[in-house]
Amino acid sequence: MSEFSAQDVVFMQIALDLAQQGQFTTTPNPSVGCVIVKAGHIVGKGFHFKAGEPHAEVMALREAGENARGATAYVTLEPCSHFGRTPPCAKGLIEAGVVKVVSAMHDPNPQVAGKGLQMLTENGIESAVGLLAEKAEWLNRGFLKRMRTGKPFVQLKMAMSLDGRTALANGESKWITNALSRADVQTERAKASAILSTSQTVIADDPLLNVRWEQLPEETQQIYPIANLRQPIRVILDSQHQVKATQCLFEIESPVWLVGKNTRDLTGYPNFCTHIQLADSTQYLHDLLFELGRRQINTLWIEAGATLAGSLIEQNLVDELIIYTAPKLLGDDARGLCKLTNLTQLSDATLWKLHSIERFGDDIKSIYHPIVTEKKC
Amino acid sequence: MSEFSAQDVVFMQIALDLAQQGQFTTTPNPSVGCVIVKAGHIVGKGFHFKAGEPHAEVMALREAGENARGATAYVTLEPCSHFGRTPPCAKGLIEAGVVKVVSAMHDPNPQVAGKGLQMLTENGIESAVGLLAEKAEWLNRGFLKRMRTGKPFVQLKMAMSLDGRTALANGESKWITNALSRADVQTERAKASAILSTSQTVIADDPLLNVRWEQLPEETQQIYPIANLRQPIRVILDSQHQVKATQCLFEIESPVWLVGKNTRDLTGYPNFCTHIQLADSTQYLHDLLFELGRRQINTLWIEAGATLAGSLIEQNLVDELIIYTAPKLLGDDARGLCKLTNLTQLSDATLWKLHSIERFGDDIKSIYHPIVTEKKC
Repeated sequence: MSEFSAQDVVFMQIALDLAQQGQFTTTPNPSVGCVIVKAGHIVGKGFHFKAGEPHAEVMALREAGENARGATAYVTLEPCSHFGRTPPCAKGLIEAGVVKVVSAMHDPNPQVAGKGLQMLTENGIESAVGLLAEKAEWLNRGFLKRMRTGKPFVQLKMAMSLDGRTALANGESKWITNALSRADVQTERAKASAILSTSQTVIADDPLLNVRWEQLPEETQQIYPIANLRQPIRVILDSQHQVKATQCLFEIESPVWLVGKNTRDLTGYPNFCTHIQLADSTQYLHDLLFELGRRQINTLWIEAGATLAGSLIEQNLVDELIIYTAPKLLGDDARGLCKLTNLTQLSDATLWKLHSIERFGDDIKSIYHPIVTEKKC
Repeated sequence: MSEFSAQDVVFMQIALDLAQQGQFTTTPNPSVGCVIVKAGHIVGKGFHFKAGEPHAEVMALREAGENARGATAYVTLEPCSHFGRTPPCAKGLIEAGVVKVVSAMHDPNPQVAGKGLQMLTENGIESAVGLLAEKAEWLNRGFLKRMRTGKPFVQLKMAMSLDGRTALANGESKWITNALSRADVQTERAKASAILSTSQTVIADDPLLNVRWEQLPEETQQIYPIANLRQPIRVILDSQHQVKATQCLFEIESPVWLVGKNTRDLTGYPNFCTHIQLADSTQYLHDLLFELGRRQINTLWIEAGATLAGSLIEQNLVDELIIYTAPKLLGDDARGLCKLTNLTQLSDATLWKLHSIERFGDDIKSIYHPIVTEKKC
C-alpha cells in the first residue's frame, strides 16, 4: 500500500462517499464514484446514479472539462472497457487526457476484469489499484458476489429479543424491535436488489415487503429523495401456490416474483406478478440463488421464519447475518430464531465473525459474516 | 452542576480512578478515592484498600501532611462521620485544616447520610456535593443498593449463542464464549462480594466458582496483584441438600454458604462451609437477598441455569443483566436462556435498558438494567 500517499487516501475516500450516493439506485450495476484531481485540487466529481445513465467517470469528466488534461482520476472500481448501455469509461479517460488513474479495486465483471486497466496502460496512462479496496469491496459486496459466483449476496435479517426469540408462542411479534431499528430495516431494504420471503410469512403477516420512504431515517431521506425511490423486487417462495391475489403484497405496483415448483396460472394476479418455475431438488435454494443471479439480483435481503433461516444457514448460503436485538426477555416458550438439525457437539456449530455493532436506542444491530462458507471467489 | 469548574472535574476523575483501585478488595465497604489539592496542585492522593485499613481521606491526608492546611479535598463519597473500625474522616479533614470538601455523592449509609457534611459545615468548611455523581454511583452500585434497600445489587450473568442458547440439547456448553469473554467473567467475579449458583449447576458442571488470578486479563492483573487476591463468597442454593463434600467447590479454602430450607449436619464438610437455613416461602428469593444483605454482601454475581434466571427476572430481583453473546448458532433444539411463564402479549415482556456494549473479539458483552423493577431507593 506504500505506493499511495495520504492525499491519495483522501481523494479516494471522497470518491467512495460519492459512490454511496448511488447505493439505493444503481442495481444491477455497481455503485461507483470518481474524483478528478489536478495539481492537488478537485476539478471534477461524479457518481453513477442508475443503470443506463452515465458512469461516474463520465460525470466527473464532464465537470472537469478541459481541466481533465494532465489530471489524475480516482475511481472506486476499475474503469470499464466495454460498450454496454454507455461507451467504455477507459476510453473516455484516455480521450480527456488524464495521465493517471487510481482504482480502489479491479472489476471482477468478466467483461472488464483487468481489460480497463490494460486499455489505459496501452495508451500510456499510469495506473494503480488497491487503494481503500476493503471499503470499495464492502460497498459493492452484492454486485461483486454476483460477478464472482453468479449468485446474489445473501443478507439474512433477524429481529429478536435478548433471549433470541422472534415471536411469542402465540405468534405475536409486532413489535419486538424499536422504531429506530425498524427505520434502519427500511434503509437496508432500500439498498437491496430484492427482498425474499415465504408464503408462510406472507399469509401469516400479510406484509407489503416494500420500502416506505416516509419511514426511512432522516439521514437516508436526505441522500435519497422520494423522487428517486426504487422498490426492490419482492421474491416469495410459494411452492404450494398459497399466495392469493388478495394479499397486501399486490397493493403496491412493483414486481413480485412467486417461486414454485410447477407451472402456474396467474390469471387474476396483477401484471407485475411473475411466476418462476424451479424444479424440485435437494439443491433447491442453491438453484434459486443462481436463478436470481441470472436475473441480475445483486443483494438479496431475506425476512422470513426460523425454517428458511435454518435451511439457508445449514446449506452455507448466508453471506451476512443482520441481527436486531431488542431489550426484552420473552422466555423459553417463545419462538426461536432458526431451526437447525440437532447438534451433538459444540464444535459442529456454525461459526460467524462479528463485523460490526451499532446501537439504535436500546436495540443492538450486529452484523456477522460466516467463517466457513461456500467458496465465494 | 455549574457550581463546579473544569478543574474540579479533572480532580474528581482522578479521585474516581484512585477509588477503582480498591474495587476488588473493599467489600463490604465502598470503594473510595480522595485527592487533596492546594493552589492547583495535587498534594495528596489516597484510596480505600480494604475494610479495617485506613479510608481514602486518611491516606491522602497522610501524603499531604502540612500541605493539607488551606487545601481542597475531592472525595468520591461523602466523608464518614462515625467511629467504625477507623475514626471519622470528616474529623480528620477538619483537623488537617482543609478548607473545602467536594464530594461526588452523599453516603446513603444511615450512619453517615449527610452527617459527614454537616460536621464539616459546623466547622466552617465549605462543602459541595454531586460532581460526577453518576460515575461514583456506578462504582459503588453494590454498596449503595445494600445501604438503600438492605439487599445486594444482583448481577445475572448469561453466556449464550447468537440465538440465545446456553447449551446444546445434550447439555454441552464448554465453551460457547471465547477466552476473552471468560477472562472478563473472571474480572467481574473478582469485583463481586459473592457468587450465587445452584446445586443443579454445581452437580452438573462441578465448578470451582472462584477467581482464577492467572486467567484475569492483564489489565486487571496489573491493578490487582495476586498477593491481594480476595475470593468472593460462594453461595449455593441447595434446598434438597444435594451438594456433596466431594464437589470441586470445596477444593478451594474459601467460604461456601449452602442455602437450604431445613437444618443440616455439615459433618464431613470443610470448616469454611456454612449452612444458611431459610424458611420455605413464596418470598424465598427476596428473603435470601435480605439475608445476604444482612451478611454484608454488596454485589451478588449469579451464574446459574434458565430456571433460577427466570424466577429472578419474573420477581424483578435482577439489577443488572450481563450477557456475553458468542458468534455461534445452536438452533431451536438447544437450551434456552430463561424459563418465563408463557407470555400472551408482547406488552407483558420484561423491558430492559441497554447500558453498554463491549466487544471481546467476536463476542459481545452487553449490560442491561431493568426499566421496571422493585423500588430501589
